[in-house]
Amino acid sequence: MSVVDILTARRKLVDDFLLKMLRLGASAELYEIVKHQIITGGKRVRPAMTILCCEAVGGSAEDAIPAAACIELVHNYTLIFDDIIDQSDLRRGLPTVRAKYGDVMAILAGMHYRETIYEAARRSPKSERIEKILSLALRRIIEGERFDVLFEQAGRESEYVKKMMYKAVDEKDYFRMIKAKTATLFEAACKVGGLVGNGDPGQVEALSRFGRNCGVAFQIVDDILDIGGRQGELGKEIGKDAKEHKLGNIVVLFSLDELSEAERDKLLHVLRSFRLSDFDVKEAIGILLSTNALKRAWEASREFITKAKSNLDVLTGSEAKRMLMDIADFLTERSF
Amino acid sequence: MSVVDILTARRKLVDDFLLKMLRLGASAELYEIVKHQIITGGKRVRPAMTILCCEAVGGSAEDAIPAAACIELVHNYTLIFDDIIDQSDLRRGLPTVRAKYGDVMAILAGMHYRETIYEAARRSPKSERIEKILSLALRRIIEGERFDVLFEQAGRESEYVKKMMYKAVDEKDYFRMIKAKTATLFEAACKVGGLVGNGDPGQVEALSRFGRNCGVAFQIVDDILDIGGRQGELGKEIGKDAKEHKLGNIVVLFSLDELSEAERDKLLHVLRSFRLSDFDVKEAIGILLSTNALKRAWEASREFITKAKSNLDVLTGSEAKRMLMDIADFLTERSF
Repeated sequence: MSVVDILTARRKLVDDFLLKMLRLGASAELYEIVKHQIITGGKRVRPAMTILCCEAVGGSAEDAIPAAACIELVHNYTLIFDDIIDQSDLRRGLPTVRAKYGDVMAILAGMHYRETIYEAARRSPKSERIEKILSLALRRIIEGERFDVLFEQAGRESEYVKKMMYKAVDEKDYFRMIKAKTATLFEAACKVGGLVGNGDPGQVEALSRFGRNCGVAFQIVDDILDIGGRQGELGKEIGKDAKEHKLGNIVVLFSLDELSEAERDKLLHVLRSFRLSDFDVKEAIGILLSTNALKRAWEASREFITKAKSNLDVLTGSEAKRMLMDIADFLTERSF
Repeated sequence: MSVVDILTARRKLVDDFLLKMLRLGASAELYEIVKHQIITGGKRVRPAMTILCCEAVGGSAEDAIPAAACIELVHNYTLIFDDIIDQSDLRRGLPTVRAKYGDVMAILAGMHYRETIYEAARRSPKSERIEKILSLALRRIIEGERFDVLFEQAGRESEYVKKMMYKAVDEKDYFRMIKAKTATLFEAACKVGGLVGNGDPGQVEALSRFGRNCGVAFQIVDDILDIGGRQGELGKEIGKDAKEHKLGNIVVLFSLDELSEAERDKLLHVLRSFRLSDFDVKEAIGILLSTNALKRAWEASREFITKAKSNLDVLTGSEAKRMLMDIADFLTERSF
């Protein structure tokens, strides 16, 4: 069974439940808007991990559905607001909620998602525990997103953001940011899976670590794809994060390590310029790609996946455990 | 004891608790931002009503603090996002969160508020019940805000909003909108107060109705002040809602009833024009003020307050009940 098959097999269970939850307390008009975020895609990696973690400690997939739906809802809740924050028009090649319905409706849709997380959580086994984990995770994600914005080198109009902007970002800052922004939800996905499967504390802790390491690897790969390009319907867009002024990208940070002072200045100049010519962007990306940064980033992601897989050592062998290992590998091998 | 004294006496208890909750899981930087929304003012009418409703059924003020804080947090959560939606720079004469910290930080602050509501709710007696009421209330408020935006006659760039805009708004639409947008939270404030005070089902139902009627009256008075002007540091701004293209204002709706066709057309033209001259606005407001609309609106608010006070008949006399009656009167007598 390929990883795509693993994800597809669990997708319908989660989607049916979460769409039912999204409908609660929503008018037909609002439901159309909130549904858009779900039906336009997504790999459903996180909820699949929740279900598999539940099964890996002896629980049934059914018990994990509400918690898995929560995780996917949290993900989409943050995506709706991220797209507003970044004024993004496209996601997965399709219009974002804000592009299709406007920022105002996207804000209201986002707020509705948060209430849907609550509805899904209260239907889960161990609902009180699940709610607490999700709410703490959300606050960490918010802080991560705050760092991510403050690591950008240009492009924000707010005087406050300009004042608070990080002039330099080191690896410690970077890992603190991605652990909060991205790894938090992978960790929560695996933790709640272990909990609803009635895993013992050692198993739940191991699954949490597995999730966190997978999440770090996932974000590193995201950074790689946001520089090196991502397979998509419209071909590869190279250097997206450089165009978006992001210093909080591991490929950018690794390349800065290797560059001569002149090249460093050139790259930082491009990151810090609000208006860029195509020529400047191409030159900056050329500089980036001349280093070993992509290769080193890929190796770093592999290291986190190796750690993640060893976190599963405490679990006895099972079909679910094997699938979790496959998903972990898939996270660094994907090209989209 | 004046109503201002009643509110002031309860303010510190609520504020201390809610600031403590806002601090949970927030960095010092984010806490500064979320605190801004609280320290810049607000009357704290709703949390005072929660506490008094608790006391009116025999509970102690202390038991009501977390629930009262929840209500005030919900209020401020929606205000932060409302100010983003309406791109408002000033509230109570001071910069809004978005004006001071930018839209991006305001969004993250808003999201943090929602998690704080959860933290406050889980510390309340009957936390499960409280959480459910708050989440349902939030979804109704979101729908109310959606109507409010769709009742505007111009000023939104989104094609979707333009397409979905209400060409006409009648009283039924209006009351549906304000019940959802405004009365929902007053109802919830009083309901949770009755619940944490261990009121019997009849008392809780009576308090809920009291809250709902107070909320409707409150919004009608808000509409009056947004046309007739509000006492403030910068003097009165007349016709604010007319400038903001709002057809969802009872004074506007009542005036349309009375006007000749030519005057109606003139007023609607102003509401529907994206760019307005001062002359046009003054003329439209002149037309508005030539009718009995303000007087009729004020009478309507008095009727809801009379109904609200009669809802309290089932409660035995108490200091708290008397204060609730005073607050009800205050809601239609305020000029700010």
